[in-house]
Amino acid sequence: MKEPPAEFELIARLCAKLPRARRIILGPGDDCAILPASPKPQLITIDSMVEDVHFRLEWGTPAMLGARALNVNLSDIAAMGGAPTFCVINLAIRPGLDMQFFDQLYRGLGRVAGRSRVVVAGGNITRATKLAITVALLGVVEGQPLRRDSARPGDQIYVTGSVGDAALGLRILQNKIAAPAPAREYLVKRFLQPTAQVAAARKLARIKPTAAAIDVSDGLWQDLGHILERSGVGARVDSALLPLSTEYRQVCGDNYELALNGGDDYELLFCLRPQIPEAQLSRRLGVKVRCIGEITRGRQAFLVNATGQAARVRGQGWDQLRAH
Amino acid sequence: MKEPPAEFELIARLCAKLPRARRIILGPGDDCAILPASPKPQLITIDSMVEDVHFRLEWGTPAMLGARALNVNLSDIAAMGGAPTFCVINLAIRPGLDMQFFDQLYRGLGRVAGRSRVVVAGGNITRATKLAITVALLGVVEGQPLRRDSARPGDQIYVTGSVGDAALGLRILQNKIAAPAPAREYLVKRFLQPTAQVAAARKLARIKPTAAAIDVSDGLWQDLGHILERSGVGARVDSALLPLSTEYRQVCGDNYELALNGGDDYELLFCLRPQIPEAQLSRRLGVKVRCIGEITRGRQAFLVNATGQAARVRGQGWDQLRAH
Repeated sequence: MKEPPAEFELIARLCAKLPRARRIILGPGDDCAILPASPKPQLITIDSMVEDVHFRLEWGTPAMLGARALNVNLSDIAAMGGAPTFCVINLAIRPGLDMQFFDQLYRGLGRVAGRSRVVVAGGNITRATKLAITVALLGVVEGQPLRRDSARPGDQIYVTGSVGDAALGLRILQNKIAAPAPAREYLVKRFLQPTAQVAAARKLARIKPTAAAIDVSDGLWQDLGHILERSGVGARVDSALLPLSTEYRQVCGDNYELALNGGDDYELLFCLRPQIPEAQLSRRLGVKVRCIGEITRGRQAFLVNATGQAARVRGQGWDQLRAH
Repeated sequence: MKEPPAEFELIARLCAKLPRARRIILGPGDDCAILPASPKPQLITIDSMVEDVHFRLEWGTPAMLGARALNVNLSDIAAMGGAPTFCVINLAIRPGLDMQFFDQLYRGLGRVAGRSRVVVAGGNITRATKLAITVALLGVVEGQPLRRDSARPGDQIYVTGSVGDAALGLRILQNKIAAPAPAREYLVKRFLQPTAQVAAARKLARIKPTAAAIDVSDGLWQDLGHILERSGVGARVDSALLPLSTEYRQVCGDNYELALNGGDDYELLFCLRPQIPEAQLSRRLGVKVRCIGEITRGRQAFLVNATGQAARVRGQGWDQLRAH
């Protein structure tokens, strides 16, 4: 079946807005883009944002959407300690969105691409009933990759920034939770305009022995579960150590539920030998990190709560981890 | 927002069905897959198939869908003369499709991947209101790539196989055109189960000077327009030379409208110096090819019709090319 007749023109117009790059051999306009040879192992990831599943148009601007679509992919590259290189974009468009909308969407995406030195190598546009932006992103591993399967008993568990803000921001957008104006603005921004921890992760990848890492997209507890499962280890996390922002505390107080089980943080969760004090590690990575617990033997995860009691949680997969 | 809770299990089950590969460094299960270094330039393309836009579930089996999703991407790699290597898959799933459906879909995709030596490096699953399968596919260029911008006056224009069958098959599925049973089966299969001309294109890429090429996905006339536009040349095509299948002729007679302007053929359209006789070229590429015209100076495309008259068509972009 035919694509909309404007497809070719749309791709050309949109790509013209994206940062140009010298290191690509052949950019958009042919059946494939041609990328230069890669002397180092490469990373690849794909992620998609679907209207009314991951976002609603009325929540933000088209530029925010474009920026977010690339950022969630950048976060996957960051979680491996890699440097992003090239991406291709599949845009599923629906009636009712005009050229100005897509101009702005690509402008937002292009800004993030430029800052991250990502080259948009090509794309495809298809018709659909809901807007969807799917990005496949390549990266390069410069040293040892940060994998999920390399956590070892005795490692300390760290998280960058603060967690729970984005999940709280989403609930504010959905009118499920109310928040005072300045906090609301910050929390909503954490959801709509996440930034990937690419720079911090690349610095982390230089520390030996290599950390195990994952980005916090499903929620801290669930994502920690992925590391435990893949590494065949357990964990002990102190809920009192979870890094909560001032704004989060303003709305939720000490209730760490969303910090633990919310998602969309795009912070970095990593496990590292206890060799560098927290403050020094923060300076070294250029981002505030917090030690929230440690990796243990066995396959069980424990959460130490505010009253000092250990809540035992069976560790046979993240789904089970979350269920208790 | 959360993905369906079964996501992790679904990815794991589906990936278990896909051909395993030794040359991948890290497969599905981490934030990114890790691919080996690529000593040669790489190709990348992305394409998407959306339910009720590109297909209807009742038209075929889930296995056919999975196979087709990869084949339309393989056709883009073929159009550059490349060898496909790795892919990532984004699956937008909707309520009402069970595990058996996705098992079959991935089995179909896996069979094509295995035959094409494509390694499924990873994927992502998201919720949506319509099923959509988006594949980003990498490949490698072994010699000179077949580009759209290298057609030169005097080149002969060739097309592999036959054209118009898939477009006719689609219209039969849509009950817009009726066809007798044996022809119907063949034509519908040409739409539902296309195969990419990867092997022929790789052989073509070894012939010097390097051909200009494109795959016929939008329709022969429109896709030829892309070559003319990018190469800054014109063309003269003889409609009597368009390769029509017996089944096509059974239904449409000498009406070449769908052969010229239909789509979804996934045949190879290429422009080559007139150095090898048609029959010899067919043997060399391992697929029947037909010379349908030649590249000319200027930027205009002419179609010589059955009565011997030349219909002049202005050549300022494919949209204009089609309009006349």
